[in-house]
Amino acid sequence: MTHTDTIVAMATPAGAGAIAVLRLSGPEAIPIASSIFTSVSGKSLAEQKTHTVHLGHIKDGEKIIDEVLVSIFKNPNSYTGEDVIEISCHGSNYIQQEIIQLCLRKGCRMAQAGEFTLRAFLHGKMDLSQAEAVADLIASDSAASHQLAIQQMRGGFSSEIKRLREELLNFASLIELELDFAEEDVEFANREDFQKLISKITHVLKRLIDSFATGNVLKNGIPVAIVGEPNVGKSTLLNALLNEERAIVSDIAGTTRDTIEDEITIGGIGFRFIDTAGIRETTDTIEGLGIQKTFQKIEQAQVVIYLFDSEKFNSEVSGQKSKFKVEIETIKNKYPQKNLIIVANKVDKLSEEERQKLKVTLSEIDNSSALLLSAKSNLGVEELQNKLLDFVNTGALRNNETIVTNSRHYDSMLKALEEIIKVQQGIDNNLSGDLLAIDIRQALYYFGEITGEISNDELLGNIFANFCIGK
Amino acid sequence: MTHTDTIVAMATPAGAGAIAVLRLSGPEAIPIASSIFTSVSGKSLAEQKTHTVHLGHIKDGEKIIDEVLVSIFKNPNSYTGEDVIEISCHGSNYIQQEIIQLCLRKGCRMAQAGEFTLRAFLHGKMDLSQAEAVADLIASDSAASHQLAIQQMRGGFSSEIKRLREELLNFASLIELELDFAEEDVEFANREDFQKLISKITHVLKRLIDSFATGNVLKNGIPVAIVGEPNVGKSTLLNALLNEERAIVSDIAGTTRDTIEDEITIGGIGFRFIDTAGIRETTDTIEGLGIQKTFQKIEQAQVVIYLFDSEKFNSEVSGQKSKFKVEIETIKNKYPQKNLIIVANKVDKLSEEERQKLKVTLSEIDNSSALLLSAKSNLGVEELQNKLLDFVNTGALRNNETIVTNSRHYDSMLKALEEIIKVQQGIDNNLSGDLLAIDIRQALYYFGEITGEISNDELLGNIFANFCIGK
Repeated sequence: MTHTDTIVAMATPAGAGAIAVLRLSGPEAIPIASSIFTSVSGKSLAEQKTHTVHLGHIKDGEKIIDEVLVSIFKNPNSYTGEDVIEISCHGSNYIQQEIIQLCLRKGCRMAQAGEFTLRAFLHGKMDLSQAEAVADLIASDSAASHQLAIQQMRGGFSSEIKRLREELLNFASLIELELDFAEEDVEFANREDFQKLISKITHVLKRLIDSFATGNVLKNGIPVAIVGEPNVGKSTLLNALLNEERAIVSDIAGTTRDTIEDEITIGGIGFRFIDTAGIRETTDTIEGLGIQKTFQKIEQAQVVIYLFDSEKFNSEVSGQKSKFKVEIETIKNKYPQKNLIIVANKVDKLSEEERQKLKVTLSEIDNSSALLLSAKSNLGVEELQNKLLDFVNTGALRNNETIVTNSRHYDSMLKALEEIIKVQQGIDNNLSGDLLAIDIRQALYYFGEITGEISNDELLGNIFANFCIGK
Repeated sequence: MTHTDTIVAMATPAGAGAIAVLRLSGPEAIPIASSIFTSVSGKSLAEQKTHTVHLGHIKDGEKIIDEVLVSIFKNPNSYTGEDVIEISCHGSNYIQQEIIQLCLRKGCRMAQAGEFTLRAFLHGKMDLSQAEAVADLIASDSAASHQLAIQQMRGGFSSEIKRLREELLNFASLIELELDFAEEDVEFANREDFQKLISKITHVLKRLIDSFATGNVLKNGIPVAIVGEPNVGKSTLLNALLNEERAIVSDIAGTTRDTIEDEITIGGIGFRFIDTAGIRETTDTIEGLGIQKTFQKIEQAQVVIYLFDSEKFNSEVSGQKSKFKVEIETIKNKYPQKNLIIVANKVDKLSEEERQKLKVTLSEIDNSSALLLSAKSNLGVEELQNKLLDFVNTGALRNNETIVTNSRHYDSMLKALEEIIKVQQGIDNNLSGDLLAIDIRQALYYFGEITGEISNDELLGNIFANFCIGK
C-alpha cells in the first residue's frame, strides 16, 4: 500500500527542553524538507545519502526560523518504510509551531495519532502485534512492563502464531482441494499430520491464554489492599517502600517523576496500593458503609496487607480475644484465596520483651505471613518487599517465555481456540472435509487478526487511536 | 580548554512523547556509546563517519533496553566541539532512566544546566553573547523575542563589539609602548585616528544602550493595564484578542499551549495584560486601597486601556458630567506620557443612533484614541489590535538593526561607555598616556565581558545556571 501524502508531527513532548524533534514521512518528505532547509555546507539535501545528519537553517523565505540538524532516511530503510526526515530544532514552542506550519504550507498534513507506526505496519516493517508493542513500550513504567513490551516488539509469540497459521493454511488448502476431487475419494491432507498440528496449536494457544493473567498483572501492576485504621502509619509505610526507588530517581536531574503515592515499583514490578478504611465492626451506619467499601477493595486486590499499631495490639491482646484477631480471622474466612500479609507496625516503640511476646502471639494467628515492622526506622521494610515479590509469578518473565499482555490478542486467541476445538471435534467425529474446512477458515481468521494479516479500517482505527501523535 | 570527563543528559522534555533524545559529549562519548550499543548492521560505532545515524539496540549486558537510533558527531564538528553522541530512544521515562543510568555506570557524569553550551563556548564554537542567545531562543514565545534571539545567536552586535575592541586594544598597546619611550617624547598612536575611534565607539555604544529599552520590551512583552470595573467584559475582550492566535494553535495537534489569559501575542509581539479594579472614586477605605493598586499597575504599564460599558456610559452621560469622563481625565492628568486607549465595549447593545451619539461624545473627550468595540460580536477587535501594535516601536526590528536584550550586556555597555567618556575627557584635557591607558584597559575589560573574551567561573556559573539541563 502506498501513501501519496506526506505527514508531519512533533515526535517529542511539548514543554521546555533543550531540543525538540519533528518528523516528516511520505513521498514528498525530502522535497518538502529541501524547500525549507539550507545546509551550512551548501549541499543539496536531496543528494545526500540515507542515514546522514546535516547542520543548517530552516528558512521561511529569507526569514531564519532556527538552526537545526536534519536527518535523512530513504525508503525502505526508515521507521515507516517511506522517505523520512527528522528535524531536530531548539525546544521553543514558538519555533516548533513555526516549522510545523511551514511544513503544512509546503504540502504536508498533520499526522494522526499513531500514523507513523500505522504506515510502518502497512509497509510491512512490523506486524500488528509489534506495532501495538510500540505503544506499550512508550507507556512502560516498570522493568516488567518494559520487558514484556520489548519482547512483544521483537516478535514475541507472533512469529510462532504466524508459523502455525501457515501450516494450518496449508492443510486448509489441501482439504479444500479434496473437495474438488470429492467423487474420487482421495486424501491430499495426511490426517495423522493434521491431528498432530491441531494438538500442537491447541497446546500453544492454551499456554498463551494462560499467560495472560500473569501478563496483565505484570503490565498493569499488582493491586494490594492495605487494611488498617487511620494513624496506623500507612503513608509512612508507602514512603518507606518508595524510598529506595526515589533515591535512584533523584540521582537523575531532569527526569522528575510525579510521585503517585500509591503506585510503587518494587524489584521492577509495579504495585498499586489501595488504601482502605479498615474493617472494625461497628453499629454506626456510615462506618458500616465504610466496611462494605473495604471489602470491595479487598475483592479487587491480589494481595492484602493487614496493618496495625503494635502498641495498641499489645495493650488489647492481654486477656480476652483481641479485636485485631477478630478482624484478621474475618479476612481469612471471607477471602481464603487472597494472599494475606499481617504487618505489625511501629515496633520501634516496643521493648525487646514486648516484641518477643508479639511475635509469639502473631505466630499463633498466622505461621508464615506475619512480620514485625517499623516504617519509621526502616525495620522489616525489605522483608515486606520480598514477601510482596514472592506473590508475583515472575517465573515466565525470568525464563523469557512469551507472555500475552494485550486483551485484543487474548480475545482473538480465545476465539481461535474455540474454533480449533471444533476442528478437533470434527476430526474425532469423522466430519466431512467441507465442514472441517469452515471451522479451519474461521480459526485462520482469528489467527490473522492477531498479527494483522487480517485487518480492517475499524480495527486499525481502534488500535492506533490509542497511540500518541508523532509515533 | 579540554575536558577529560564525558557528560550525559536528556535533551528533550520529560513527559509522554513518541521519542526522547539523550546526548553525550566528551572524549569518551563514542567508546561509552559503543559499549552499550549494538548496531543492527553489525558495524562498530567507533569506525563510523561523523554525521551518520545508526539503527540498533541499547543493551545492558544481554538485556535489551530499547531499539534506538544513534547519531555520531566527531570533534570538532559538533555542537560542543567535542565528540558527541545522540541517542534517540522511545519516549518512556523508564527507558530514559535506564539508558542514563547505564551511561553513568559506564563512566559518564550527569551534565549540569547549560553545560553542553558552556563547553561549546569554551571550545570556541560560539562567543558568550551567542551562548546566551541559545537560552533566549529556547524561551522565545513570540515572533519578536524569537527574531531577537536568532539575531543575537548569529552574531548580532558581538562581531561589531569585537572589532571595536580589537581596534581599541591596538591603540592601548601603542599608547603603552609610548610609555616605554617616555623620555624620547614619541607618539606611536596617531591621536587623530584615536579620537575618531573613540567617537565611533561612543556612537555605537549609545545606539546599543538606547536599543535596550525596545529590546527589553520586545523580549519580555509589552505591559498593558486594563482599567475597568467588573462585568465590563475584560475576559471576553482578552478572549477576542486571543482568538486569532488560538485558531492557529489548535490547528496543530500535539503542540498544546497553556492558555495564560493575560499573555497574548498580537502580530508577533507579546502583550502582558494586567487586570485592574478600576479607579471609581470612593470614600470607602478598602476600595480606596483598590484604587491605589490600580494606579500602581498603571505605573508599570506602557499602554493603558480604559474599558467601559457603552450602555452605562450613555445613560450616565446625559446631563451632568459623567463619572467616566472624570476617570479618563484623572488618568490623562496623572499619566500624560502613557499611551491611552479608550474602549467603549458592548456597542452591540446600542442602537445606531446611540452609537453615533457615543462617537460624538468620545471624540470630544479624546480625538484619536477612542474606539467602539464589541468583544462578543468581534466588532472593533482588529482595530484595537492595530492600535496596540502602533505603540510598539518595531522599526528597529523591521530594519534588522542589532538590539540589546540582555541586561548583562546592557550593564557592561553602560560601564564601557562610562570608561570611554573618561578616555574622551582625558584626550580633551591632554592627559598623559599612562593615565589614558588605565581607562582604556578598563573599557576593554567591559567589552571583553560582553563577548566572553574576559570571563571567570562566577560569571559563567551565573549565566549557564539559567539554562535547562541537556542544553
